[in-house]
Amino acid sequence: MVLPINVLEKSLNTQITLLLKDNRLLEGKLVGFDDYMNMVLEDVEENKDGALRRLGTVILRGNNVITISPK
Amino acid sequence: MVLPINVLEKSLNTQITLLLKDNRLLEGKLVGFDDYMNMVLEDVEENKDGALRRLGTVILRGNNVITISPK
Amino acid sequence: MVLPINVLEKSLNTQITLLLKDNRLLEGKLVGFDDYMNMVLEDVEENKDGALRRLGTVILRGNNVITISPK
Amino acid sequence: MVLPINVLEKSLNTQITLLLKDNRLLEGKLVGFDDYMNMVLEDVEENKDGALRRLGTVILRGNNVITISPK
Amino acid sequence: MVLPINVLEKSLNTQITLLLKDNRLLEGKLVGFDDYMNMVLEDVEENKDGALRRLGTVILRGNNVITISPK
Amino acid sequence: MVLPINVLEKSLNTQITLLLKDNRLLEGKLVGFDDYMNMVLEDVEENKDGALRRLGTVILRGNNVITISPK
Amino acid sequence: MVLPINVLEKSLNTQITLLLKDNRLLEGKLVGFDDYMNMVLEDVEENKDGALRRLGTVILRGNNVITISPK
Repeated sequence: MVLPINVLEKSLNTQITLLLKDNRLLEGKLVGFDDYMNMVLEDVEENKDGALRRLGTVILRGNNVITISPK
Repeated sequence: MVLPINVLEKSLNTQITLLLKDNRLLEGKLVGFDDYMNMVLEDVEENKDGALRRLGTVILRGNNVITISPK
Repeated sequence: MVLPINVLEKSLNTQITLLLKDNRLLEGKLVGFDDYMNMVLEDVEENKDGALRRLGTVILRGNNVITISPK
Repeated sequence: MVLPINVLEKSLNTQITLLLKDNRLLEGKLVGFDDYMNMVLEDVEENKDGALRRLGTVILRGNNVITISPK
Repeated sequence: MVLPINVLEKSLNTQITLLLKDNRLLEGKLVGFDDYMNMVLEDVEENKDGALRRLGTVILRGNNVITISPK
Repeated sequence: MVLPINVLEKSLNTQITLLLKDNRLLEGKLVGFDDYMNMVLEDVEENKDGALRRLGTVILRGNNVITISPK
Repeated sequence: MVLPINVLEKSLNTQITLLLKDNRLLEGKLVGFDDYMNMVLEDVEENKDGALRRLGTVILRGNNVITISPK
């Protein structure tokens, strides 16, 4: 059995893509997370309905997340 | 009595279909889950209003899920 | 006094109809549930604004439910 | 001081009207409830924007309720 | 310091106005409440976008409330 | 480090402005609050899309608040 | 591993940008936060769909936040 938290641990320092509840996509390097799946991402690129923005380092609140996809 | 968690356990390493609150469908192989019904899926195909996307491995936050259907 | 959980227990292995928060109706045989009113249903038929779909076995997350009606 | 739970207890086996968050009205006989204000109702009539439906016995999840009015 | 619960206690058996999350206004006599700010109101008049309805006695679930105004 | 609760304490008996989740603005004198950031305000003026209303004393449920601005 | 709370601590007394669930952007100096990620910001500028407003000191409820970006 692969626990969700194990996949996060293995994804540390790699690129991940996040789908948020407001349909926003965030892509960046996962550098940390806590027990609530709050995450720290670096070099984040946001894609909101096709409009791209560079966000740098981002703390993401875990309750906004639908899916997390390692690259 | 069949507990929901028992059905998840029996579905490990098989294909399942998930209906999410935003009407998205995810189909993939269930490889793990935790006590909050957060799940790890592999070889995921997403169907959003008929538009298909391949997502690979996905961590899904359990509170976005409406129904889980084993194949 | 009839506790909600008692009605669920008496409904085991019988047909029930569920109204979900997104206005979806699910009808199927209740074969199990847990303390959060997550349920396992078999031979489920979904009715979404009149469009019918057969879903087979379904785990339903309890927090999506408005009403549960035994047959 | 009249506690909400006291009013529910006194309403057992009498007709009540419920207003739900999705603007649905349910009217029926209250035959039970639990600590989360989940309720069991009998001979329920639903009124959704003027469209009436008879639902028979219903388990109602308490977190969908706005108001409860004894008759 | 005036605690919110103190204002509720002082408002017992007086008229209060409630603004609910769905923009509904309820006005009535507060006769009780519990730790979740569920309330019991008597002689309630509802104002929904200008349409008035008399509701009699009402149990109100506290999590639907935005503001409570004593008269 | 300035804790949010410290700012509330220092704002007691002064004017504050609250932005609520439904885009409503409330302005009034903060006279109390509890651990859930439920607040008691006096001489409240509400601004809803430019329409002003005087509300007098108001208990505000904390979970409706986005921001609190001391004057 | 970089915990989200560590990034907040390192951002104390620096400029941060917050994206809120209602699509509002807040930019200001972070001067404090608590365990729920409620924050205190100073010299806040709000950007709501391009309309700018100066808000001064602001207590922000943490559950409205999607992302926090240090400058």
